[in-house]
Amino acid sequence: MRRSIGLEELEDIAIGAAVLGTGGGGDPYVGKLWAQQRIIANGPVELVDVDDLADDALVIGVGMMGAPSVIVEKIPSGAELALAFHAVEDACGASADAVLCVEAGGINSTIPFALAADLRLPVVNADGMGRAFPEVQMVSFAAYGLPATPMAVADEHGNVTLLRSVSAEWAERLGRALVVAEGGASVIAQYPIRGRDLKYAAIRETLTLSLEIGSTLRAAGRRSLEVIEALTERLSGVVLFHGKVVGLTRETAGGFVRGAVAIEDLDTRAGGQCEVIFQNENLLATADGVPLASVPDLITILEEESGHPVTTERLRFGMRVFVLGLPCAPLWREAIGLAKAGPRCFGLDLDYVPFEQRLAMR
Amino acid sequence: MRRSIGLEELEDIAIGAAVLGTGGGGDPYVGKLWAQQRIIANGPVELVDVDDLADDALVIGVGMMGAPSVIVEKIPSGAELALAFHAVEDACGASADAVLCVEAGGINSTIPFALAADLRLPVVNADGMGRAFPEVQMVSFAAYGLPATPMAVADEHGNVTLLRSVSAEWAERLGRALVVAEGGASVIAQYPIRGRDLKYAAIRETLTLSLEIGSTLRAAGRRSLEVIEALTERLSGVVLFHGKVVGLTRETAGGFVRGAVAIEDLDTRAGGQCEVIFQNENLLATADGVPLASVPDLITILEEESGHPVTTERLRFGMRVFVLGLPCAPLWREAIGLAKAGPRCFGLDLDYVPFEQRLAMR
Repeated sequence: MRRSIGLEELEDIAIGAAVLGTGGGGDPYVGKLWAQQRIIANGPVELVDVDDLADDALVIGVGMMGAPSVIVEKIPSGAELALAFHAVEDACGASADAVLCVEAGGINSTIPFALAADLRLPVVNADGMGRAFPEVQMVSFAAYGLPATPMAVADEHGNVTLLRSVSAEWAERLGRALVVAEGGASVIAQYPIRGRDLKYAAIRETLTLSLEIGSTLRAAGRRSLEVIEALTERLSGVVLFHGKVVGLTRETAGGFVRGAVAIEDLDTRAGGQCEVIFQNENLLATADGVPLASVPDLITILEEESGHPVTTERLRFGMRVFVLGLPCAPLWREAIGLAKAGPRCFGLDLDYVPFEQRLAMR
Repeated sequence: MRRSIGLEELEDIAIGAAVLGTGGGGDPYVGKLWAQQRIIANGPVELVDVDDLADDALVIGVGMMGAPSVIVEKIPSGAELALAFHAVEDACGASADAVLCVEAGGINSTIPFALAADLRLPVVNADGMGRAFPEVQMVSFAAYGLPATPMAVADEHGNVTLLRSVSAEWAERLGRALVVAEGGASVIAQYPIRGRDLKYAAIRETLTLSLEIGSTLRAAGRRSLEVIEALTERLSGVVLFHGKVVGLTRETAGGFVRGAVAIEDLDTRAGGQCEVIFQNENLLATADGVPLASVPDLITILEEESGHPVTTERLRFGMRVFVLGLPCAPLWREAIGLAKAGPRCFGLDLDYVPFEQRLAMR
């Protein structure tokens, strides 16, 4: 099935992907404006299903790498996207047939449309996470053993660096070093993949799901309880906590934004205080020290006033929020998924237990 | 004029280039063994003069980037040299006709012979400094506006990264970030240059000069006074200080070794205490706080016992040394040279004055 993505659809994708982005993946407002501008200039973008790609079709992922707190301040000119993309095409010795989202997020699900509009290429209705994760190797393609490189890092000055790394972990390490040297956030093109590999390794329909989530939020207007109900039903999620932000530590360093937010209970249902710790994305939610949910499951914070997702760099003291737990894509609950993105991959001293099981044990 | 470089010549080049390396450029013992091993395997290497290169001949510089204190511990397998070199050839879309030394130094003047032996290419009798400097943009080619990139960084794991930077300064910044992420020292290939450009931009005959210096040191045996006399005469240098190392601070961080050595007077001739500060290479020598010599002039420390040059990472407490001042290549005393490698480029709050003038003023 093919469908066309125009200005209105992008509005929804940006917000919907930010829900799946679990606090990371970039600010939906910035992402929306960016992609809409390129669609105004070049027309709508076609969304193509994985099954409609030829086996030898080449697709290349694009996105931003770095700290989302930097991305909202240091917005690319746009030219870097094509620089990075063409560098990977050159390294592959072939032209790409479509643009790929590597992760879901307000910016990283919309950038591919900005580039696709410029290059008049379709975007694949899939991603490599079904959510956002902070590191290069935390991608379904890497879990299946597909290489992250050739990967290109490009900045607003015109510097373009092409990595050929022996592992996705090395691509993360070297790419992050470049991004930090370039000011904390840069554009990347990575994971050049053939259609035949995408058919087993992609997390499918992430973009139409984002579109649907965004549309649901829009239909619910600013009635956050209706948003919550619609979202938890559609995504098999739960409200983990409801409260007010009473503490926030946030540091931008080493190409990430890291920190924790403390949320005080507003309705006594779930203990006194909830803490959510994050590395670009929300990693772990605890209530009075007891884990409620952890990566790879999705922990999404919605602002009570708007019902809209809040990215980690937008959290602020006094904000009233809902903390949602949503199940991750099935791959992440398997051994190959947990090896790339289980709690211990983030330095958390915790075994993964699906959040539904944690709640059932309470 | 063409000449063949075999095992014995390499012995001399390694030591002679370490004299010009002014404390940096890598340990001559490690460099000698490395290149000799490849010459044993593949035969001697031809040295070719700049004027014997065709105008469209392509030459590519190779060397190590990082902290010399790391290089003596983390020796490459050798395979990275060809990986980096071929990556730059690929980026140029052409095969190289010769290998180039970018700087003079115990390792960085010998690595090119190791690679040249493997690839059966000649080495150009020139370099881009006539000495060693710590940063990518501190090269005669950059002073003349020639690009440092495409530049490749390769490590012992097999990671190969190709930089295309908007300036040599950006190549330094991004390359350094990669080198640090790879453990503090990596192999690089850089400054792909055509024969016609090399003819005006190269510092000529650095390798035959190194060979001559090494041979002079060898002839003098372990009689350091004879070494000093021969060197200062041949290179128009002076002994700035003679003494014993009584203090040493040295830190390896950010891809450099930085520090200072304090040397106590042994013959009352030149004040009480000399300090030499370094960033890979010796940057500034002072006696009781008064500058004696600074970059871009050469400050070389010779061990009294052996008459051999001491690299900054080999300095140790109690060592008796001569501190020599030697004039830099004329380019570095011109405005375009001082803009790249004058004292202020190293953060020194000091105008450049040729060391001969400083001595005449004393």
